[in-house]
Amino acid sequence: MDISTNTSIIHNIEETAFERTLLDAINAAAKVTLPAFRSGLSVDNKLDEGFDPVTQADKEAEQVIRQVIEGAFPHHMIIGEEHATKQTDSPFSWIIDPIDGTRAFITGVPVWGTLIGIAHKEKIFAGIMAQPFTGEVFLGLGSKSTYSRFGSDPKNLTTSKVQNLDEARLMTTTPALFEGEQLQAYLNLEKQVRLARYGCDCYAYCLLAAGEIDLVVEAGLNIYDIAALIPIIENAGGTITTFDGSPADKGGNIIAAATPQLHRAAMDIMAKK
Amino acid sequence: MDISTNTSIIHNIEETAFERTLLDAINAAAKVTLPAFRSGLSVDNKLDEGFDPVTQADKEAEQVIRQVIEGAFPHHMIIGEEHATKQTDSPFSWIIDPIDGTRAFITGVPVWGTLIGIAHKEKIFAGIMAQPFTGEVFLGLGSKSTYSRFGSDPKNLTTSKVQNLDEARLMTTTPALFEGEQLQAYLNLEKQVRLARYGCDCYAYCLLAAGEIDLVVEAGLNIYDIAALIPIIENAGGTITTFDGSPADKGGNIIAAATPQLHRAAMDIMAKK
Repeated sequence: MDISTNTSIIHNIEETAFERTLLDAINAAAKVTLPAFRSGLSVDNKLDEGFDPVTQADKEAEQVIRQVIEGAFPHHMIIGEEHATKQTDSPFSWIIDPIDGTRAFITGVPVWGTLIGIAHKEKIFAGIMAQPFTGEVFLGLGSKSTYSRFGSDPKNLTTSKVQNLDEARLMTTTPALFEGEQLQAYLNLEKQVRLARYGCDCYAYCLLAAGEIDLVVEAGLNIYDIAALIPIIENAGGTITTFDGSPADKGGNIIAAATPQLHRAAMDIMAKK
Repeated sequence: MDISTNTSIIHNIEETAFERTLLDAINAAAKVTLPAFRSGLSVDNKLDEGFDPVTQADKEAEQVIRQVIEGAFPHHMIIGEEHATKQTDSPFSWIIDPIDGTRAFITGVPVWGTLIGIAHKEKIFAGIMAQPFTGEVFLGLGSKSTYSRFGSDPKNLTTSKVQNLDEARLMTTTPALFEGEQLQAYLNLEKQVRLARYGCDCYAYCLLAAGEIDLVVEAGLNIYDIAALIPIIENAGGTITTFDGSPADKGGNIIAAATPQLHRAAMDIMAKK
């Protein structure tokens, strides 16, 4: 056994540990989020006056995700939306958004997700998006992006081959993300694509990785909103950066596209603003 | 046994036959629509050049729905979006939209639905909405609206108690449904509600019946888009009419609301335009 094979085996063992922890974490989170989703349809829902089930579910879900991560990797850093950052001297950090798409969550639409990314130093090398109501899991890890549903065998994800705006299916959560010249640029982009659709939050990026749509353009994202989605998109063959072509890993104004050509065409319109 | 009891028994037998036929029809349609949904994720997808899976699925789904209806009620009229109306002298007519929410369908978002309504003369007295990917069925029949998922026992649906715009969760498929003064009125309405969300097609009306949202406002609907949803909303306690308060059963510009008070408040804004 030569060194490269050995390294590869060690690498695989690490990947398996990361994957298992990501899956354990989203399963733990689902036990908190699902009972709070669609309280109107839940027979078990017993709300006290003034109790906010969404905020509560958000905080509790992050708490259980942190517990899973700390059990598996006690020295890693953890950055979450709802609780204080856990600072350590580890080069690894986990980035959590327990419920991305709060508006989808509170209106009963199953396009919100639990997002967890893992970074080594500056590089986000793994990410998961889970939609527990539909039972879907999108995972970017190693060199692959995979999809599974209700625990089915994972299938590889590949972005579409669309290169031109006039063939592209575009999504953004809402045009209200944009203002002023940026809004004008976005509306200009929308006029040039095959179709535009609103209201999909993190689900849109996963549909992009799956080849179901071709372009996502959003403004004002934070690191929790996007970190987990980067490996899912890049491993599926997509390109994701900020409007000016910088790395997407800190959030900001984001273009995600099925191909480099389509990404460039969208950037040509959005980057000027 | 007095006459009223007897009538009630006959009525129940009829209801059971209608319900069984609606369920048979949506199950038959799902066998056509699901394989065409998310072709990018389907390993079995073998598309020829120039073959449009959506149009094909739409037509085939309506065909199998018609077959189920004709098997059970051979003399009833059938009005569908994709095929010619079947005219008879029966007072009963079935109104079909095999895939409502085509844009959701072709972008992989599970908020499209198969809609079937049943009218006796002018009155639409039964309707079903099925979302086969999520396994959800919303049924309005008799005096009830019910929800079931993957064949679970039906639960009764009830709209929320929201009466005021500033508490209301509003949905519309896209603001692009509105133009000119109507768009201004809609944007005015949007400013007054608690939150507005886009992109949900027929799913929005079902979320309204389920108490998850409070208000749906859309323009330019046709009879296929809305017929099946009317009993689902009304039996759950909601109010649905056109902007000027006329019956919704022919389509047009539609306001659906959780309560009569909220419906009136939305109509006060939209009816002027």
